[in-house]
Amino acid sequence: MNMPKFYIYEKLFSSSAPQIEPPATPAKYNFIGGHNDPQSIPIDGLADAAATVLKREGHRLAMYNLGEGPRGYSGLRRFLGHKLASHRGISGSPDDILVTSGSIQGLDLVNRLLIEPGDTVLMEMFSFSGALNRARAAGAQVVGVKVDRDGMRVDALEERLATLKREGVAAKYIYIIPTIQNPTGSVLSLERRHRIVELAREYGVPIFEDECYADLAWGIEAPPALFSLAPDVVVHIGSFSKTLSPALRIGYATADPRFLARMVAAKSDGGTGALDQLIAAEYFEHHFDDHMPRLKKALKRKLGVMVEALEREFGTGADLWVPQGGIFLWLELLGHVDVRDLSQPALDAGVAFDPGPAWACSPEDGRSFLRLCFALPDETQIREGISALANACFAVTGIPARGDNRPR
Amino acid sequence: MNMPKFYIYEKLFSSSAPQIEPPATPAKYNFIGGHNDPQSIPIDGLADAAATVLKREGHRLAMYNLGEGPRGYSGLRRFLGHKLASHRGISGSPDDILVTSGSIQGLDLVNRLLIEPGDTVLMEMFSFSGALNRARAAGAQVVGVKVDRDGMRVDALEERLATLKREGVAAKYIYIIPTIQNPTGSVLSLERRHRIVELAREYGVPIFEDECYADLAWGIEAPPALFSLAPDVVVHIGSFSKTLSPALRIGYATADPRFLARMVAAKSDGGTGALDQLIAAEYFEHHFDDHMPRLKKALKRKLGVMVEALEREFGTGADLWVPQGGIFLWLELLGHVDVRDLSQPALDAGVAFDPGPAWACSPEDGRSFLRLCFALPDETQIREGISALANACFAVTGIPARGDNRPR
Repeated sequence: MNMPKFYIYEKLFSSSAPQIEPPATPAKYNFIGGHNDPQSIPIDGLADAAATVLKREGHRLAMYNLGEGPRGYSGLRRFLGHKLASHRGISGSPDDILVTSGSIQGLDLVNRLLIEPGDTVLMEMFSFSGALNRARAAGAQVVGVKVDRDGMRVDALEERLATLKREGVAAKYIYIIPTIQNPTGSVLSLERRHRIVELAREYGVPIFEDECYADLAWGIEAPPALFSLAPDVVVHIGSFSKTLSPALRIGYATADPRFLARMVAAKSDGGTGALDQLIAAEYFEHHFDDHMPRLKKALKRKLGVMVEALEREFGTGADLWVPQGGIFLWLELLGHVDVRDLSQPALDAGVAFDPGPAWACSPEDGRSFLRLCFALPDETQIREGISALANACFAVTGIPARGDNRPR
Repeated sequence: MNMPKFYIYEKLFSSSAPQIEPPATPAKYNFIGGHNDPQSIPIDGLADAAATVLKREGHRLAMYNLGEGPRGYSGLRRFLGHKLASHRGISGSPDDILVTSGSIQGLDLVNRLLIEPGDTVLMEMFSFSGALNRARAAGAQVVGVKVDRDGMRVDALEERLATLKREGVAAKYIYIIPTIQNPTGSVLSLERRHRIVELAREYGVPIFEDECYADLAWGIEAPPALFSLAPDVVVHIGSFSKTLSPALRIGYATADPRFLARMVAAKSDGGTGALDQLIAAEYFEHHFDDHMPRLKKALKRKLGVMVEALEREFGTGADLWVPQGGIFLWLELLGHVDVRDLSQPALDAGVAFDPGPAWACSPEDGRSFLRLCFALPDETQIREGISALANACFAVTGIPARGDNRPR
């Protein structure tokens, strides 16, 4: 199509219309985003599930929401009810669950219900960039809460809540990723969970719990979800993006039934894709308990390769936050490196990574950090990519001076 | 789950948070919404397509957007490019197409880009309630343009545009469903299409063309899409909801490349469901040209049954707008009936219909109209349902006094 000069829309855009973003540069060594392990997609299992579920439910595709209403496919909500009960300590009926189009929609729905411009929300000081950006786009000020390698620090949370209270600010929620935190990979202890729930009640600030990675813990037995401890003050969301596929858009939410009903009212998208729902439900109904150990084994192996490569290439030049599971490794480059200076040289060397500042409530806190996804590249790509990253880093910063036991 | 009395969210809701809606009452005779014919869902074809496409593309499910970026599965956009060229006169490359999560998302994206509170948009006086409600929710005032059985009246459009211009109002778009209009079922002539494009250029108001039903025309050869006549001033959206399944959430948009790029930037949902996209593309790639005649034949037959039932039961008490295709029949009850008085008595008799006022820019204009979807119920249900509707109508209004050639 030729691009005409006349542009009728020129003066018609609303003041909040988003600008065009440049397309991402494809990188040979792709450590960005939340992609997963291609070899762990259960292709045959999904094809079998498709055949079975289409035969059983196919005629219902003629109706919006399969004729079931806006909460999502009942078979999927039934599976989720079982999974949440057996894996996350959450009891409840399928009617207490809302299927969402990815957990991102869960974020949007909660923000839609709670946030007005000028509001305040709390998050771990390092957190999911999507949650940060969406809260900000809704007009919220995001206040960071200090974390350590065991997750959100409860003393820091209490101090923040007390300060906000003194200032007369009613924060709208405490967003937290307690189990395999993104990006730090930490798992919050049961003791901290109980204390955070107490603080939420004491200060009247609900908890917004994101458990997208909770089924991918292998280094530790994940304590029960915050929602299981206090369903009255926690909104709980999760996703199939990390357990099955991020290209499928399936997430879920559970909360106080009155709050969940308002999330349903806000979900005005005509439903979540039916084939995504039907096929994922049918597959997981029968294979969740064999798929997950297989996937975790593959991810654990790739993490091992990445940790080994980082230790070899960066030595003491990097401080690794080795995760308890999941798909991300968070690390700090020592020597006051600013990773924003490293992004383009790394891309030039074929390496894409996520820079810490985009994952930090206060970007400066993340200046020396970067997040690497180890799930997508194969083992050779991980080794070569980390080596290329170390070389690019050395060229820019002089760090790390040694790699592979040799000086650069 | 027990419902706790304590409700932490009570005072935290934003002023624009939507209220809980009561669930729709299931009706024995369901003529509401945009459901389709259950027997026309190509179950085996979809299962075969799923097996084929998963085998070919399955590993890519490990990546967001199948690793292709936010415009949607390239195979689907390729199919859409062919379909738009061969069926709607639209030329362009797959890169000129954006896959959306239903055409509803197309509405949301365009509104997001163009509408601010206080803006004005133009629509056919009877139009899709979703388009009306979403424009209003975005803060727009909707100005209706008179229609007749051949679609939007160009004299009425010109008069509205001139009036707005005199008032110094720059309308944001002219939303129009030119081919199988919803709810009236009309098809706009080529002559009117050319004139509307001229008016859009003359007044600098873009056209927002919704072609959700265009592939379902059987009474007439549909003239080319408005977009094909003037790609520089038309945003064109469509959907697979009516041609394949409304439970799948697949729509599409094409527009000036600069405008489309901003729609892409506004589509921040992490992508449209991949299995919905993959399977629909694979099925339609090979079967669009045999599926559509089969589906249209089934729908035409059901429409015939409904028209026959309405003529028998309502006689001269109703004025039918027999459509040129699609899934809806729009009709006017004569004798100044207000259909809002009829909704509950009809539901009590097991009949659900869509009341005209919800499909009218000025609700009073639709007071005697109702929209019936004939695609979902089977032939017996159509006959029984129309009879039950006529009886309920007679009980409330005394009209129609005769049915089935007997007095009531």
